[in-house]
Parts: sequence; structure tokens; C-alpha cells
Amino acid sequence: MSGKKTAEEFAKEQKEISVSEFFEKNKHLLGFDNPTKSLLMAVKEAVDNSLDACEEAGILPDIGVKIKNIKEDIFSVSVQDNGPGIVKEQIPRIFGKLLYGSKFHRLRQSRGQQGIGISSVTLYSQLTTGEPTRVWSKIESQKKTCYTELHLNTMKNEPDILKQEDIEKDIFDGNGTKVEMTLHGRYRKIVEDYLKQTSISNPFAKINYTAPDGTKIMYPRSLNELPKPPKTMKPHPYGVEFGTFQRMLQNTSSRTLLSFLTNEFSSIGNQSAKEICKISKVPDNTKPADMDRAATEKIIKAMQTVKIQRPPLDCLSPIGALELEKSLKKEYPNAELVTTINREPDVYRGFPFMIEIGIVYGFQNTEEKKNGKKKNNNDDDDERNGESIELIRFANRVPLMYQQSACGLTEAVKDVDWRRYNLDQKGSNLPSGPMKLVVHICSVWVPFMSESKEAVAAYPEIIKEVKLALQDAGRKLSSYLSGKHRAGEAKRRIQIFERYSKEVAEAVGILTKKNEKEIEKKIKDMISSRVHIKEEFAEGSEEKKPEIKKEKEIEKKK
Amino acid sequence: MSGKKTAEEFAKEQKEISVSEFFEKNKHLLGFDNPTKSLLMAVKEAVDNSLDACEEAGILPDIGVKIKNIKEDIFSVSVQDNGPGIVKEQIPRIFGKLLYGSKFHRLRQSRGQQGIGISSVTLYSQLTTGEPTRVWSKIESQKKTCYTELHLNTMKNEPDILKQEDIEKDIFDGNGTKVEMTLHGRYRKIVEDYLKQTSISNPFAKINYTAPDGTKIMYPRSLNELPKPPKTMKPHPYGVEFGTFQRMLQNTSSRTLLSFLTNEFSSIGNQSAKEICKISKVPDNTKPADMDRAATEKIIKAMQTVKIQRPPLDCLSPIGALELEKSLKKEYPNAELVTTINREPDVYRGFPFMIEIGIVYGFQNTEEKKNGKKKNNNDDDDERNGESIELIRFANRVPLMYQQSACGLTEAVKDVDWRRYNLDQKGSNLPSGPMKLVVHICSVWVPFMSESKEAVAAYPEIIKEVKLALQDAGRKLSSYLSGKHRAGEAKRRIQIFERYSKEVAEAVGILTKKNEKEIEKKIKDMISSRVHIKEEFAEGSEEKKPEIKKEKEIEKKK
Repeated sequence: MSGKKTAEEFAKEQKEISVSEFFEKNKHLLGFDNPTKSLLMAVKEAVDNSLDACEEAGILPDIGVKIKNIKEDIFSVSVQDNGPGIVKEQIPRIFGKLLYGSKFHRLRQSRGQQGIGISSVTLYSQLTTGEPTRVWSKIESQKKTCYTELHLNTMKNEPDILKQEDIEKDIFDGNGTKVEMTLHGRYRKIVEDYLKQTSISNPFAKINYTAPDGTKIMYPRSLNELPKPPKTMKPHPYGVEFGTFQRMLQNTSSRTLLSFLTNEFSSIGNQSAKEICKISKVPDNTKPADMDRAATEKIIKAMQTVKIQRPPLDCLSPIGALELEKSLKKEYPNAELVTTINREPDVYRGFPFMIEIGIVYGFQNTEEKKNGKKKNNNDDDDERNGESIELIRFANRVPLMYQQSACGLTEAVKDVDWRRYNLDQKGSNLPSGPMKLVVHICSVWVPFMSESKEAVAAYPEIIKEVKLALQDAGRKLSSYLSGKHRAGEAKRRIQIFERYSKEVAEAVGILTKKNEKEIEKKIKDMISSRVHIKEEFAEGSEEKKPEIKKEKEIEKKK
Repeated sequence: MSGKKTAEEFAKEQKEISVSEFFEKNKHLLGFDNPTKSLLMAVKEAVDNSLDACEEAGILPDIGVKIKNIKEDIFSVSVQDNGPGIVKEQIPRIFGKLLYGSKFHRLRQSRGQQGIGISSVTLYSQLTTGEPTRVWSKIESQKKTCYTELHLNTMKNEPDILKQEDIEKDIFDGNGTKVEMTLHGRYRKIVEDYLKQTSISNPFAKINYTAPDGTKIMYPRSLNELPKPPKTMKPHPYGVEFGTFQRMLQNTSSRTLLSFLTNEFSSIGNQSAKEICKISKVPDNTKPADMDRAATEKIIKAMQTVKIQRPPLDCLSPIGALELEKSLKKEYPNAELVTTINREPDVYRGFPFMIEIGIVYGFQNTEEKKNGKKKNNNDDDDERNGESIELIRFANRVPLMYQQSACGLTEAVKDVDWRRYNLDQKGSNLPSGPMKLVVHICSVWVPFMSESKEAVAAYPEIIKEVKLALQDAGRKLSSYLSGKHRAGEAKRRIQIFERYSKEVAEAVGILTKKNEKEIEKKIKDMISSRVHIKEEFAEGSEEKKPEIKKEKEIEKKK
């Protein structure tokens, strides 16, 4: 058998692939598939981290973002926060090692969840420009600021520290972290869109932005209070998988199955635990170590059938209906209608999640036109056109700027029959009309469709909840739109009265033999008492319904 | 500042996330997002590996695939090949460690490229059923078969060997590998579709399949020869990135920039290397170690401007126009037209790639209907409907069964104006008609949109080449269809002659005073000499054009 390659020859070629080599070659999976997106990724990952750190440390975030165009297609991005800072020893790994972080292993809502984001920017920066990531950090217990320059060693997925030293110059007003990266990119307005949307979903954050051309934009707080910090939860029994359960059995310090079930899972009390054991016919005093495959299978099966409370919901941190409304009104002060919905939390595969909806209707987009903003500045986004509503997606308060058409949230929006709520809709496209639709999913684990976290996977439980929330919002919209329609008709009638008031006064004068002028004045007074209908709509509040009854009274009086 | 969380407290929570933990939690990224797909993944990853191993070892693949329904939604999948086997020491890591393999680090076409596939099935199997992966391997240098049972240790991303022993029972006819896995799944016909398509793109492979209900299907070879083995190439200078170049500089044993450029890159000769150095104004005797960032940047820039030969193309292994046609004719023996196109290779970001197209037109799908096959058995595939053509996508000979609408190959098909080639097409949807369209991309590195390798990223160079190839194929189709159209008209005229032959004979008889019967016989003979036009189309060959000239001759004679 000459010429054949043997198993031994194959064996020599087999080797380990480091996760950073993998992602360097597949950098599009991390979101670095074009220069515009790459630049946004750098801003986004740094800002998301800053917000997470501030929020978790109980500090109202004050964030500075600055983009400089170094030359041609090379940009530097710096993001500075007033968070707690990072201890010296952790800086290299946080910024220079993929799959490293504090958020992956706990069940609690946060912006980051993978331990990939910011280190992927280091990877991409050094790949495209060779420049190290620069980090400044000042922590409470240290007097000096620690400055670090680092690379990510792609072969090992470990940080290479080029420089680490305490510096005298204080760039912080208190504590904080600043990161600066130099990378290949292209500047588009989408960066501003991202910051604006971030400001909507994080109304307690203040963001100061300096664009490459020196333009400064301030996104102020609309709220001076942090949201209630979410708590960490234990796994919920619904949807727990065999392998996960087995690992939990191995790692538990509980001595019996009963205490294992009550200690290691959320929402299982003594009663439910006993019922699970009873149904599965596995004795509740079985030692976890003695659970074989058959027993494990039975217990998992029983867990799915027993009625167990929902997981605790204090692990979530929704924006809040009032806060979202306030945020949207701040951003779109001229909108006719701003309304929000938030649903009760639900659960998919044991993970709690919650949907919030915001509707901004009839906004005046003169401001956007003035800024030369184009709607289609998302490079891959062919969904929007002049007619379609604008869909603004958030996951755990983070704006999702790309892959709209692949996203489960979009799918849910398209699935709703918007014609029922007085909006135009062709087939199952996005509806059309002068509307911005905000959809926010928050969860302890958002199932993203790729490492770049741009689109939410279409889990049926999630789609269903989003649709229900949209229908709630749709009803509010519909009632406003039909009110507006009725008010429009009322207004038209008033105009007719006004137009003919002179003629009517003349005719009535002849019939009643009274002074025409006086009659005309009375008619005009009567009409002017209706003028507030017009004013209401100029104000743009959804609360005040047009006063149709009075209109009817006029008719009666006639 | 009480209540605040300090940097030190944050630091305690930071830890490493193993790549297997990451993918266990994100298993949908690996293709395990629903039970149907999960079962297919198990078959696919094992078959792809077997084909790669056989082909690389120079062995005509003979593969057995067996799916058993263990109970309810639990299936076992076994795949056995006649490849070279795997050495004992390598078995655990190949099947029980993510990101391990021989194909990632070399530039050469193969089915696998990530070192993730088969070990991800082990991960998913143990997660859903707790069952270990079982592997049998017999290699040339060992007399006995080695049997291994293993898990993937998710916390460490390392294999846990449960059992490894030499066994007496010989299950192989020579050497080979067999793998068996037990997992949560759902059985659908898509497994058969995958195997059928695999047989089309790998005409040298023999596959024996046993479905869960015991049905056996044999996919025979249509070719008794392996394709020419592809060679490994060096990186091409076009599109090389800063970080990659820097690493190459660090690792080279070349002593000067000149020899570095000629030794480490493909297609750079002495002449081009000198030109690059000249343009960049970096002396060609610079030591690689002395290259600073500025010099590196200049050299990379110069490399993109100098005219350099295409990369070598022997690293590719296309199906071949003739082979693909033969394959398609074997699969669709009743098709009217089977035709194929293969383009010259091209390059994206330094990677050679090549597009092949196959068209099967006017097939009789009675067979498929008989088998109760539904077109829409792809769970996520809403593209196909009764009217649309069927698109069959391949990447490096592997059928892509999911995410059709997200795929760059699909985008290219939709971008072509098929109306120009006599097919119906609504807007920029897939065209409609009784047609199967095969698109194959082969490359040393196919840019997939996710780890599950279901869709090709829409790189402009790739889209462009696919469109050009489709247009070539479209012209072939169009010339056949217009020929068919003309022949159809000819046939209709013949039918008219036949219908009126008696009346014509009568009239001619009166005019010429000859025997009506004889005249009618002559007319019918004349017509019957045209009957082969009908037969041609029954045969379904694109070679034989309808004989329009003779038709014109008849008209003249008249």
C-alpha cells in the first residue's frame, strides 16, 4: 500500500488550536467583518464594560468617548469611565485574553456575558495595526494610576505585557478606567446612533462624545438614580440539561438528593423536592454521588412535570416603563405619541427574561435631516426604507446595531398583524409609518446568534412574549390613532362652521330678525371654545383625548 | 463611599472560561439549536471526517452510516469508514477536545477546518444523554482494534477517558475508524438529503445508510478514482494582515527581508520581492528581527500594489465539470437537461477559491413524491416553495443544509437576473421553474458565518465569482430553453399537419387527380420522418437540438 498516508503520519499533524487563533482567522464571527462595524465594536465593547462596572459598583456612570482619525483608515478609540478601576494584576487578562471575565459563570443580567468583547478588540487592533492596547486604571486603595500596554499572544491566548507602571499624572477625577486602542476602521454616524440609543436604554448614564472631526456631543442623564442592582440566581429546574445536572451532582456539598435539590436550584422548596423524588421513584435520601444515569434521567424528567414556581425575577434589571418613556420623550421631544409597555417576566430554558416595548409615533425628523443623517448607515441593513418604521432593538440595555433581519426580535415584529392597529403593512414585512419601535429583551442569558451579539436567536418562548408585548403596545397605538382620526374629523367640521359662519349668521339673522353681527360673534365664540382640540395635538400627548362629546352638543344645540 | 463594590472585590470574581463551557452554553452556535439539526450534525461531522481521512490517505471511501432510535427522542448514530484509523493516543483529543486537529493551521482544501466538529457532537451527546462517545480504530501498524469510551471534560476542555483497550473482535475489513454517539434528536428525511447530496459532490465515495426504521439505502460510486490530492500552500501576499505578517517575521528562519519574502509567501519570486522592497524603500537586506512597525507597514502596503501571480491552485480540489455532470445524471436520470460550469479559480484575501455550478432542468420528481419527500424539511428554511427552484449549496464538497437565506451563495443566485435566461423570477427572489441549481465553493479557507458552517459569508469577491459562474450556466440554460421553445412550435405545426392530412390529401387529389389514399400516405410518411423531435425531448439530452431546418424545408416543399 505505497503512497498511502498512515495513521502515524496523520497523528504528527494534529495539534491544539488556541481560541485566539481561531477567532483571529474567524474575526467576522466577533463582528469585525467590515471597517465601519469594527470601529463601532471597539466603542461598543468598551462602553458596555464601563456601564457594567459602574452599575455593579453603584456609581452613576460618567463616560467619555473619543475617536481620533490617526491617518487614512487608522483610528484610535478611547473610552474613559468613573468606575471602580481594575486591580493591576487583572488588567492584562481582562484586555488581553479571550474567554476571561466575571459574568459568564453567574446567572444575573449584565451587558457582557461571554468574556470575549474587549479582548477581541485588542486582537483586532494588533492584527490590523500592530498597536498595543493602552489601559489606565485608578482604584480606591492605590494612590497612583496604573498604566499598562499589552498585546494578546494569539498562539497562547494569554496577554503579553509590554509595559506596566504607576504614573504620577492623574487623568481621573477619583477612580476609573480608561482604555485606548488603535485599529483599522471607517467612521460612520452609526457610532452616534449607538451612543444615542445607549443613552435611551441607560437613562442614568452621562456620555460625552468627541467625534473624529472634533464635534462634541453630550448625552445627558434623564435619571439621577441607578436601577436596583440585579441579584445572582441559581439554575432553575425547568430546562436543565442532563450534562449540567450531572456536573452539579458531582460538585455539590449536599449529602442527600433532597437537600441537593433544595440547595442547588432556585424555586425548589422542600415540598417540590419531595414530590420530584416521589414521582421519579428515587429515594430522597440517595447520596448525590450515588446517582447513576437512570436515576438522574428520572429526576430530570420529574422536575419538568412538577409545578415549580417561576425563577426569581430580581436577577433582572429592566429599563422600566416610566423610565423608558421619559428617555424617549427626552430624545424625541416633538413626537405626537410616546408610550411604553413592560410585560411580566417569563422563562425560557430555565432563564428568566422580560420584554419591554416603546413606541414613538409621529416624530418630527427635521433634526435628523439637518444633521445629514441617513437612515441606512448600517452596512448590512436592508430592512429600513423610507416607509418602514424604525426598529430599535436592545438586549440587556445594549443597542443591537446590525443583523436586524436575522434577529428573533425582528421576526416577532414582522409576525404581528399591524393592520389591526391601524398601521400599513405589506405582507409580513415591517409595518410602515412615522414610528420608532423599541424592543428590549433583558435576561440573565440572552441567546445571541453569534459571538458578535448582534441578533437574538428565535427561541419560541421569546418570540411569543415579544409578540404579546407588541400587541399590548399595538392596542395603545391603535386607540391613539383612532382618537386622532376622530379628532381630525371634528376639526374638519369646525373648519366648515368657521367657513360658513358669516352666511349662517346672515340666514339666522333673517329668520330670527336679530342682529347678524351679534349672531356671527356668538357662533365664532362657540367655535373658538373648541380650538383647544387643535392645541392638544400640537402638544403631542397621548393622554388627552379629543373632546368629541362637546362636538355632539354643538350639533344638538343647532 | 459605603455600599460600593471595590476593584478588589471585582477581581475575585474574574476567571477563565473554557472554550467548551462557552460552547456548551452557546451550543446553538455549533448547530445544535433543534433536535432535527442536532441529529444531522452528528451524522455530518462524522461523515465529513471519514471522507477527509480517506481522501488524504489515498483510499476510496466506503462509509457505513447507521441511525438507531434508542427510545423516544434519543438516537444513536454510528459512522464507520475504511480510512487509515487513528493512533491510540490521538483518539481522546480528536473526539474529546474542542479546537484540536490537523486542518486549521494549513492552507489546503478540506471538509473540516476548525477542529470543532466531531468533538462538539461529543459535547452535545453527553449534555443531552450523559452517554460517552465510543470509538473503534484499527491502524496498519497494530494488529488489534483499539476501543475507546470518552467524555469531554467541559470545565477543562480536555478528554476524560472512561475506557481504552485493545479488543479481539475485528469489525473492520482492513483498517478504519468507527464512532458511535448517543444524543437527543429528531429524525427527519434531511439526513437522507444530506447523504444524497454528499454522494453528488463526492462521486468517488460509497455510502451505505441504515435509517432508524431499518430501511437501507446505498449511494454507490459514480467514479472509481480519487481526485488529485490538493497541496498545502503558503500565505499569499494579497490581503495579508499586519499582525499575521508580524508573527511571520518573528518565526522566520530567513536572514534577510528578501529571502523572507520569497521563502514565506507563495507567488513571490526574487523579482517581485526586490520590487516590493524598492517601492517601500526598506533595504532588502534588513534582518526580519529588525523590521519595526513603520517598515512592516510600508512593506505590506507595497505588497498590495506590486503585480504578483495568483496563488497556486493545486491546493484546491474541485469536483470537476465532467464529474459533477456524471454525478447529477446518476442522481436525476430523467432530467431533460444536465449541465455544469466550472470557473477559473480566483482569490479573496489571499485565499484561492473556485466556483462550480450545476444545473438540472426539467427533472421528473415522481420519485421524490413517491418517497413522501417534502421540500420543506429544513426547519429554518423558508426560501423554497412549490415554485422556486431548488438550490443545492456545497462548500468544499460538503452540502450546506441550513441557513439558506443567510448564505452568500444564495445572495449571489438572487442577484442574477434569471429572466434574461428564460426563467421566471419575482423581484430578487430565487427564480422559479422545474430546476435544481448546484453551487459549489471550494477554498483553502471557506469563510463561514458561524461555527456550525451552514452559510458562507458574503465576501464581495466570492459573490462576484458566483454571479459570473451563474451567468455562464444561465446562458447554457437559456440556449437550451429557447431551442426547446422552437422545437415545441415545430411540434405543434406537425400536429396540425397530421390533423388535416386527410383533408389536404382529398384537396390535393382533386387538384392533381391522383389517388387520395396514396397522397395521404405520402403526407403521413413525410410527417413521421419528423417524429424524432418528440423522442429527443423524451431522452432529455441537451446536446441534440431540434432540427428546425428540416421543418423549414417542409414549408418550402409545400
